[in-house]
Amino acid sequence: MSEDSTRLWDKGGTVDEVVHRFTVGDDPVWDLQLVHWDCLGSAAHARTLARIELLTTAELEAILRSLAEIDQLACAKRFEIPAELEDGHTALEAELVRRCGDAGARIHAGRSRNDQVAVALRLFMRYHVLIWMDLLDGFLKSLLERAKRHGDTPMPGYTHLRPAMPSSLGLWLHAVAEAVLEQMQAGLELLNRLDACPLGTGAGFGVPLPLDRAYTAGLLGFSRIQRSPLDVQNSRGRLEKYFMRLAVDVADILEKLSSDLILFSTPEFGFFELPPAMTTGSSIMPQKRNPDVLELLRGRSAQMRARHMEVENVRAKLPSGYQRDLQLTKEPVVRTAQDLADMLHVATRVVQELVLNPARMTAAMKPDLYATHAALAMASEGVPFRVAYRRIAAEIEAGELDEQRVQPWRDGSGRVSPEVWAELDHEAGVLSELTEQAQAKITAAEDKLFATSP
Amino acid sequence: MSEDSTRLWDKGGTVDEVVHRFTVGDDPVWDLQLVHWDCLGSAAHARTLARIELLTTAELEAILRSLAEIDQLACAKRFEIPAELEDGHTALEAELVRRCGDAGARIHAGRSRNDQVAVALRLFMRYHVLIWMDLLDGFLKSLLERAKRHGDTPMPGYTHLRPAMPSSLGLWLHAVAEAVLEQMQAGLELLNRLDACPLGTGAGFGVPLPLDRAYTAGLLGFSRIQRSPLDVQNSRGRLEKYFMRLAVDVADILEKLSSDLILFSTPEFGFFELPPAMTTGSSIMPQKRNPDVLELLRGRSAQMRARHMEVENVRAKLPSGYQRDLQLTKEPVVRTAQDLADMLHVATRVVQELVLNPARMTAAMKPDLYATHAALAMASEGVPFRVAYRRIAAEIEAGELDEQRVQPWRDGSGRVSPEVWAELDHEAGVLSELTEQAQAKITAAEDKLFATSP
Amino acid sequence: MSEDSTRLWDKGGTVDEVVHRFTVGDDPVWDLQLVHWDCLGSAAHARTLARIELLTTAELEAILRSLAEIDQLACAKRFEIPAELEDGHTALEAELVRRCGDAGARIHAGRSRNDQVAVALRLFMRYHVLIWMDLLDGFLKSLLERAKRHGDTPMPGYTHLRPAMPSSLGLWLHAVAEAVLEQMQAGLELLNRLDACPLGTGAGFGVPLPLDRAYTAGLLGFSRIQRSPLDVQNSRGRLEKYFMRLAVDVADILEKLSSDLILFSTPEFGFFELPPAMTTGSSIMPQKRNPDVLELLRGRSAQMRARHMEVENVRAKLPSGYQRDLQLTKEPVVRTAQDLADMLHVATRVVQELVLNPARMTAAMKPDLYATHAALAMASEGVPFRVAYRRIAAEIEAGELDEQRVQPWRDGSGRVSPEVWAELDHEAGVLSELTEQAQAKITAAEDKLFATSP
Amino acid sequence: MSEDSTRLWDKGGTVDEVVHRFTVGDDPVWDLQLVHWDCLGSAAHARTLARIELLTTAELEAILRSLAEIDQLACAKRFEIPAELEDGHTALEAELVRRCGDAGARIHAGRSRNDQVAVALRLFMRYHVLIWMDLLDGFLKSLLERAKRHGDTPMPGYTHLRPAMPSSLGLWLHAVAEAVLEQMQAGLELLNRLDACPLGTGAGFGVPLPLDRAYTAGLLGFSRIQRSPLDVQNSRGRLEKYFMRLAVDVADILEKLSSDLILFSTPEFGFFELPPAMTTGSSIMPQKRNPDVLELLRGRSAQMRARHMEVENVRAKLPSGYQRDLQLTKEPVVRTAQDLADMLHVATRVVQELVLNPARMTAAMKPDLYATHAALAMASEGVPFRVAYRRIAAEIEAGELDEQRVQPWRDGSGRVSPEVWAELDHEAGVLSELTEQAQAKITAAEDKLFATSP
Repeated sequence: MSEDSTRLWDKGGTVDEVVHRFTVGDDPVWDLQLVHWDCLGSAAHARTLARIELLTTAELEAILRSLAEIDQLACAKRFEIPAELEDGHTALEAELVRRCGDAGARIHAGRSRNDQVAVALRLFMRYHVLIWMDLLDGFLKSLLERAKRHGDTPMPGYTHLRPAMPSSLGLWLHAVAEAVLEQMQAGLELLNRLDACPLGTGAGFGVPLPLDRAYTAGLLGFSRIQRSPLDVQNSRGRLEKYFMRLAVDVADILEKLSSDLILFSTPEFGFFELPPAMTTGSSIMPQKRNPDVLELLRGRSAQMRARHMEVENVRAKLPSGYQRDLQLTKEPVVRTAQDLADMLHVATRVVQELVLNPARMTAAMKPDLYATHAALAMASEGVPFRVAYRRIAAEIEAGELDEQRVQPWRDGSGRVSPEVWAELDHEAGVLSELTEQAQAKITAAEDKLFATSP
Repeated sequence: MSEDSTRLWDKGGTVDEVVHRFTVGDDPVWDLQLVHWDCLGSAAHARTLARIELLTTAELEAILRSLAEIDQLACAKRFEIPAELEDGHTALEAELVRRCGDAGARIHAGRSRNDQVAVALRLFMRYHVLIWMDLLDGFLKSLLERAKRHGDTPMPGYTHLRPAMPSSLGLWLHAVAEAVLEQMQAGLELLNRLDACPLGTGAGFGVPLPLDRAYTAGLLGFSRIQRSPLDVQNSRGRLEKYFMRLAVDVADILEKLSSDLILFSTPEFGFFELPPAMTTGSSIMPQKRNPDVLELLRGRSAQMRARHMEVENVRAKLPSGYQRDLQLTKEPVVRTAQDLADMLHVATRVVQELVLNPARMTAAMKPDLYATHAALAMASEGVPFRVAYRRIAAEIEAGELDEQRVQPWRDGSGRVSPEVWAELDHEAGVLSELTEQAQAKITAAEDKLFATSP
Repeated sequence: MSEDSTRLWDKGGTVDEVVHRFTVGDDPVWDLQLVHWDCLGSAAHARTLARIELLTTAELEAILRSLAEIDQLACAKRFEIPAELEDGHTALEAELVRRCGDAGARIHAGRSRNDQVAVALRLFMRYHVLIWMDLLDGFLKSLLERAKRHGDTPMPGYTHLRPAMPSSLGLWLHAVAEAVLEQMQAGLELLNRLDACPLGTGAGFGVPLPLDRAYTAGLLGFSRIQRSPLDVQNSRGRLEKYFMRLAVDVADILEKLSSDLILFSTPEFGFFELPPAMTTGSSIMPQKRNPDVLELLRGRSAQMRARHMEVENVRAKLPSGYQRDLQLTKEPVVRTAQDLADMLHVATRVVQELVLNPARMTAAMKPDLYATHAALAMASEGVPFRVAYRRIAAEIEAGELDEQRVQPWRDGSGRVSPEVWAELDHEAGVLSELTEQAQAKITAAEDKLFATSP
Repeated sequence: MSEDSTRLWDKGGTVDEVVHRFTVGDDPVWDLQLVHWDCLGSAAHARTLARIELLTTAELEAILRSLAEIDQLACAKRFEIPAELEDGHTALEAELVRRCGDAGARIHAGRSRNDQVAVALRLFMRYHVLIWMDLLDGFLKSLLERAKRHGDTPMPGYTHLRPAMPSSLGLWLHAVAEAVLEQMQAGLELLNRLDACPLGTGAGFGVPLPLDRAYTAGLLGFSRIQRSPLDVQNSRGRLEKYFMRLAVDVADILEKLSSDLILFSTPEFGFFELPPAMTTGSSIMPQKRNPDVLELLRGRSAQMRARHMEVENVRAKLPSGYQRDLQLTKEPVVRTAQDLADMLHVATRVVQELVLNPARMTAAMKPDLYATHAALAMASEGVPFRVAYRRIAAEIEAGELDEQRVQPWRDGSGRVSPEVWAELDHEAGVLSELTEQAQAKITAAEDKLFATSP
């Protein structure tokens, strides 16, 4: 058995190549996204080891310098994970050994690859939730801005995809905005769930070293430690699932928005048009302008729901403690981080650049849309509502509702009041502020991690 | 067209029986669970109508008395929803008309069946989340209680289902307890999301009556109104989805617990036994005692994940506003409410009555479990960890680890400290208190709804 | 221990009521649908036992007579499964003991409850696949019939929900018909997979009795035995999954049909109307006629996909052999059998009674729909297609395509040729014939099972 | 507007870069796997155009030569899809124009990018189903081979994960083999569903050119044309779904196998060991050898079920005709093709190299395993089975079953008969033969496609 072997756990013996390739899978690809976070986690672990004198100050500084350099390589996409090293976590340790010798070989005291993964994933998710929240904030602003400009444009309200009652562009945008506020709140709740440091729990059963876990947590900007070592492993797949769900729920908003817009921008409805830069053509039909952007927002949302299920499926029924299946949760997390950001970016552009057709929208405000108003007017004069309802129904049965009945409601029905917009502005501001605070606390911690002077 | 027709929207004409049966589906079954909540919502709506004089005081009192009586019938499971009336909401209005005449026919002014459903479902979910939280609290207490009695019993810790490091019953129970605390926190967050009153939004585009929505919300114990009428409809399926997820996540805890226990109670592992009252036999094999209870906890959790997906599937890609598909979210919500309560009840019993086999547990603490300890001991003495690791690995390759290396770690490894249990007790108390406060506020409001004296 | 205990495996001891209720679950409800099939399976098993003299002729006749009576009760919905007996299979044995004494107590020799369930479910699924195929045949006929009457009515063809090329009602119906043919073929393939008799395999490891399994299979109308006893248990959940998938795939056809019709019957598109008997109204908006039937076809299809996943989830990752989780596959199978039949019934009515609006359909045939024709006409005259495409695109950019370019294609474009309809008629006939043969073979076998004379 | 624009549908105008990147997505990556098949489809289309003189013989030959060259580049992974060209199908046409000028610009007459995708995906799936069937055949052989060598090794049979009845390695392998045979049959059925040529249907509404579709189909080795143009588009996502399901069902076999082996190779069970080359170690625990290969087979199967759902989700509720969402079905298809092949490869190695521990297996054959045998022995002597069952149960209650009762069954119980193995050999041969015939027919057709001499 050679001590210079490259795989951390390798005790000699040959590993069959097919099996190796199958086991490694795409990990090196996804792990590239995690190297930065692994460097941060490793810096915090090294500092914790130094605190109990398992690293000297000189060793610590050597490690921190190397980590900073590796991190720069990784951020410039120039750090490579050799296939024979299985994964990025192994590659990082190997690189530290290469650069710092014995000091590098000391870094893994008191940690397992699994808590290394746990902390890297947690930092990764925390970071991307904050990015999403920024994008949600921008998306919300585009909705409110659009509403301010064109909110009072009339538009029929639909139920069962049939004209139902008078509505407006603003009323429709308002519903989207509320759903966004809900998800911004959900983002803060998720940040809180992620705000517990897993480092220092080893393979899931603790570490027989006097590691100061609260110190480690503080270094990484966490508010608390994740107390139970076994729960650190049991929460693999579980926290990823929560992360996916935030993405699924934000995507759900964009999916509904797209479903509406695909429909409302058909020539048959004609309320909206997409600007040419947002449509694509057909390879065979010269006249086509297709709303691919909207269809892909819808399709990617469908895909995202499947990715959430991928994490659920992988995790399902596993006994407690780490099982290798859980390695497969990295891909959906890493991809979803980017995909949702792209979707929010694009959806914001859609809201900003959507072209209204006020003439078609106004023309669609047929008298029958006001049938409920007419019945309620009778009810206000004492006719029991159910009776009024049947009278109006009979009238419509005989032909369109009389314009006179409808006239009093023509102006202003279905609009959103300025007070409501003001409330939304205010709440968006509060959530935005909370997000910035969370961001600031984390940045302050992370910025200090590689610093070698006290 | 007859004005005494029974279906609210019926304007005469015959409805084909097959189609009617298909459309109605199982709604009358699930709606029976919602009648109580519809009565509460109707009382609040009636009071709101009276406030703007669309009902006289006498009419309001007649309605409140009738609602109280119908509610009693419903709670005694004696309220019936005739199949020809489609659903419980229609049946409730019809019954009010039957009992109060014109006053009953006035109740539907300013509300649609859809916001009637929205409020009933929201009250139903709020109630059941509180029940689940009570049961979670009881389940958590059973875990902590068991840990106090037998937590220090040694037990191997497993990763990849292979013996990994020394652990204990307490360490294993601790991981479950942390997951439960997380869900109690999630329950509070869900209650907050549900804490917005949808009443007064009509079919999704507002109501042209000066309804005092904040007043309605207060009557029902809600902290705020759900501002956007369209979002009330768009949140159909969305809030149900959040409700299902809490159930899925709690079930996930019980699933993992069951997976562990099914395994650990095989004769091959032998750490635990189920008491005879918790096992069932085979129809053909006289010697069998099967852990059906555990298998069904696992199976029902799998089923629950599918129910969550049922809600997701039904909601997916629908345009905004109400679509009839959404009716299908009632069943998963109503069934899940009961199922999760049953599961928590049973799982609590399992934790309480599980029979330990300390002899087998102790016998399983083989020296190799302490290999990490041995390597870290070397590391503490200055050998780089990766080098120490390889030396211990070589030693084991040549035969079991020497008991002498292991001896120093035999006592106490893998135990949970009393401080941790104290923290858990404290946090459980805080969450329990918050739940009781939420419960109390709601009960205070609901208790007054049918009262006819001021 | 008392020998008159009612639960087959009960060896005395008390079973906790909560646990019992949880374990039993809804089995008695779903099992009611399986009693008929269990009677058939039991008759075949009894005959097989008699063949090796484990039952006398008199005992066999007593059992067959009792099974016939119990079967009649079950078909009249008057057979009851007492909650204390856990499930229908236990109840059936208990009833046989009650009616036939020792002969009844002999019936379970050489079978386990699990292969009893396996055979009952298989017979149930086989029967319902045949029913579905009949309904598919009727649905297909309604499509072909409608196409014969109105197939040549012009209608725009859409891609990306934008007008694309000239099409026709017939072309649209043709696509549906092809998908139906595919599923009829899939139904035959599924029947073949189900056509293996599981009886005689005990708990999954064979039975130490010289049972003539081929004889049993023949009695029940199966073409072969399911050879591997363990595969009988491993195929639990697997065969149910295939059954669900046929339903999912047929529902997928109806879902797409509904998506199209909901859209095409909006006032904005206006190609179709639903007859009044197929729409429902709103409780608040007097003017509404909603296409609930179509929305529920779409919604139930979404639900069905989740039920398929329910079976998948329950089965996932289980080790080989029977696990109690699998009991939970009964519900989705039993419900899906009925639900798909209802859906096909309703969809057939929709196709038959859909009201066309030929004026709107014809008016929608705008010149730009023929842009591809115009470009291909140029291509036929030697202009490279990509060049022709760009020329036509430029022309349209400048205004609608010239009617003259379009005129030659106005007549007949997008129609389906009579030869194609003839092919469809022929293939439908072949599949229908094969289904009837399968049906006849099964009926012939089942009809003889209870007969006591040779 | 410039006629040399690179995007097929581009009529000038600028396309926003963000939107472009979002729309293109990962298509260029997945499309690289489809270029070979697109070349084949394009060759068949070119030949069909030549047949109706839309290409001259010289133009056809130029195109065929270019396609052959591009194909070679693609197979050597040296064909590139420039990001600005959106997808591989566009890139192929652009490359043909570059190489052949006007001839290249003629190739797209009478086809749309969508039927180009349809045919490429179909050829891709057909090819990979055949590869899977080859691998299934090899996997089956490894099972049968292993059974021949060690099939009679005794092993307990488990239900509910509790020892149930005597079984054997052979009985366990037999169940796996039957499931494989079922999937080989399913593979043939899937090949039949895929065996219809979509080319010549344009954008879903036919092509106004006299294309000889039967000729095209024959060139590509298809048995029939896919008659309905709209069904070609409607079957997008549907055929992919069937492809995914075959993978899901094969993976399900490997998942169950892995679940069993992970368990049976724990030290607690000890029936099997994995050879060192198939295990991996831990980064922290020196003693560990983990069955990562088995865990990843299980995990990838879970992932595959999610990929099937991804296709289902993307397709769900779309109206008929092509929608851009469907582009997202390429990734799951392309990845699944490779992943299942890897899994089968690895699983075959596992079956071949699994190390048995006959001593532990034999030692596990405890007397109680034979309880059913003892009860049935009584039943054969006239005691009603249910009575015999209760007597044996009572005996066991009082202590282990007497070895004497068990002795007669010790030898040979739970073994599989040589006749069964012979049947399996025979059936495997038949299916293997049918697969080879399908393969041969396809290869014969494909080999001729690029040939320029008659």
